[in-house]
Amino acid sequence: MTVLEDQGVSPLMVHAPAADTPDLSTVRPDVDALLTAFLNQKARLALGPETTPLTNELGRLLQGGKRLRPQLCVAGWHAGEGYGDNNGVLHVAAALELFQAFALIHDDVMDGSDLRRGRPTAHRALAAAYITGGGRRSRAEAHGLSAAILLGDLALVWSDELLHSGLGGEELTRISPLMGTMRTELMHGQYLDLLSTGRLSDDVEAALRVVRYKTAKYTVEWPLRLGGVLAGATPGVLDACSAFAVPLGEAFQLRDDLLGVFGDPAETGKPVGDDIREGKATVLMALALREATAAEEQILRTLVGSPDLAEDGILRVRTVLERTHARQHVEEMIASRRDAALSVLDQAPLPTAAAKTLREIAQIATVRQA
Amino acid sequence: MTVLEDQGVSPLMVHAPAADTPDLSTVRPDVDALLTAFLNQKARLALGPETTPLTNELGRLLQGGKRLRPQLCVAGWHAGEGYGDNNGVLHVAAALELFQAFALIHDDVMDGSDLRRGRPTAHRALAAAYITGGGRRSRAEAHGLSAAILLGDLALVWSDELLHSGLGGEELTRISPLMGTMRTELMHGQYLDLLSTGRLSDDVEAALRVVRYKTAKYTVEWPLRLGGVLAGATPGVLDACSAFAVPLGEAFQLRDDLLGVFGDPAETGKPVGDDIREGKATVLMALALREATAAEEQILRTLVGSPDLAEDGILRVRTVLERTHARQHVEEMIASRRDAALSVLDQAPLPTAAAKTLREIAQIATVRQA
Repeated sequence: MTVLEDQGVSPLMVHAPAADTPDLSTVRPDVDALLTAFLNQKARLALGPETTPLTNELGRLLQGGKRLRPQLCVAGWHAGEGYGDNNGVLHVAAALELFQAFALIHDDVMDGSDLRRGRPTAHRALAAAYITGGGRRSRAEAHGLSAAILLGDLALVWSDELLHSGLGGEELTRISPLMGTMRTELMHGQYLDLLSTGRLSDDVEAALRVVRYKTAKYTVEWPLRLGGVLAGATPGVLDACSAFAVPLGEAFQLRDDLLGVFGDPAETGKPVGDDIREGKATVLMALALREATAAEEQILRTLVGSPDLAEDGILRVRTVLERTHARQHVEEMIASRRDAALSVLDQAPLPTAAAKTLREIAQIATVRQA
Repeated sequence: MTVLEDQGVSPLMVHAPAADTPDLSTVRPDVDALLTAFLNQKARLALGPETTPLTNELGRLLQGGKRLRPQLCVAGWHAGEGYGDNNGVLHVAAALELFQAFALIHDDVMDGSDLRRGRPTAHRALAAAYITGGGRRSRAEAHGLSAAILLGDLALVWSDELLHSGLGGEELTRISPLMGTMRTELMHGQYLDLLSTGRLSDDVEAALRVVRYKTAKYTVEWPLRLGGVLAGATPGVLDACSAFAVPLGEAFQLRDDLLGVFGDPAETGKPVGDDIREGKATVLMALALREATAAEEQILRTLVGSPDLAEDGILRVRTVLERTHARQHVEEMIASRRDAALSVLDQAPLPTAAAKTLREIAQIATVRQA
């Protein structure tokens, strides 16, 4: 059992950790209890039963996920010596999870993905709900996409409401600038990702830059810093959080890129090869192009970005990624980034227990199967 | 020259209105100056030149528009006897305009619209920018849609930032619940609109319910109330604002429905007949179905909702809308709602000058050509 796995712990078992032993095992049930209460309240305030598919779908999506950002947020709070009443930081953590639901819903619309967290993506589920509700099959796909855009929008504004509901004015003023930067950076990172998709390149630095904004800062740095700032962490602690977060976040995305191509769909909850079909300009692809023979480059340029690529095509691309040692190279990049993140913790002015938790998270985020 | 038309007034001409003569003529230049400064700041903070198309496109979209919500917001502030330093209310007004940009960008993606405010919609413009930037034509349409989803998301989070940048903690706490309700109601209203699209029905009440949430409350009631609450208006004044706003907002949307079918594209900035091609279940259509002969109903059911309907098909639908007196009936509904809104003002505990401004707005919002 790890801090990132579903704990299956009931909210009744939640207890306040002792001040000197920060405990992340309660983050998931605590955050889930906040999310459930919030969504139930929204369902009660809805205009009518017609809007139920929206809240239902959001609730289903929120049941999955690793709760990585909430755990990092609470870890950052501990790093900043936040102890005692954790109501505020749990609201920030839950708001981050709702914000992530928004990001996933819109990301899946943009990528045309069918599966997320082992079940149909929001636009697919809302298309199915439309047919169940008597809608015409011929309109269902377009309806699903539009409804998912709206659902993402709802998750975004609700994440903001959830945040406001749990923080005082002074705390809000303190963290709002970070939230703003996080949101804008994510959208910009996603836009860079869009621009590079379908344009294979051997520019590893360009691919890493997208990773930095799309994932490393959004997924690791900002959750940690948000928790830290909320706890009133010193600039030294916040700098250490960032120095730890960026290499770890890059390693996290590099692992994601490998799982997208070589992972087990039963574990990842996503079809294998989607990044290849979409033509994502990942670090993995850039490294392969650098070492590819003319024939191998031809294979990549022909197959990567073909929306209907079948399994044999995926296998041919995989072979090139292995043969050029791109896969091995990415494994090495993950290991070196994880080591860099861990060595930051050796020097950092962090409470011992907080550093221990971050070490655990670093391990799990980089060796995971899902 | 009316309060809703483009004034072409330079920000240098802005002056504080005397306390007893609320003046909306400065709202547009004041709000535009705030929006321009905000977007320029965002452009400076961007990750790099690659993200320029996003900020540019948002800037271009914001150049158009009637500034109806900002004017109503300031009118609500005057109604609540807000005088003197108008910096706070102008920030709310500008945030509403940025929020409206978000709503339009996503709405145009959902409707697949080509034109907005007389120029290409955001997804079309971003597709064109992608090609200009060296992107492949075959990917341009999909890229434009994805980029517009991101741009809408950016406009939404930036609208929140703009709001925060201009209000103190106490003011934010006061208006945040209204903002939250407004946003959720709009998304729910849009979802009801999606559900009813392509399902023609003679249920006028159902169509009016969509109008209420999608437009009346969002476009008129919440901007007015936000201004009122910011000024510390009494419950009596706020109730009067709502009683005025809802019928006026319905009239506004009913006028929009007529303009979408019978308007002049040179004035509206949108192609005529798009509502017909999309199969929008408007009040106009519901009324026509109620009075249609079997042959006329057949025409409506066959042609309304055909994405590629040509001009002769639009003309056939128009003829049915005229023949069934649906057009005339909607004109009467607009007039009676405008009268209801105006008669609220006769009884309302509003400052005389504020009531006068609202009367002017009511006239313009319901007799407009665009």
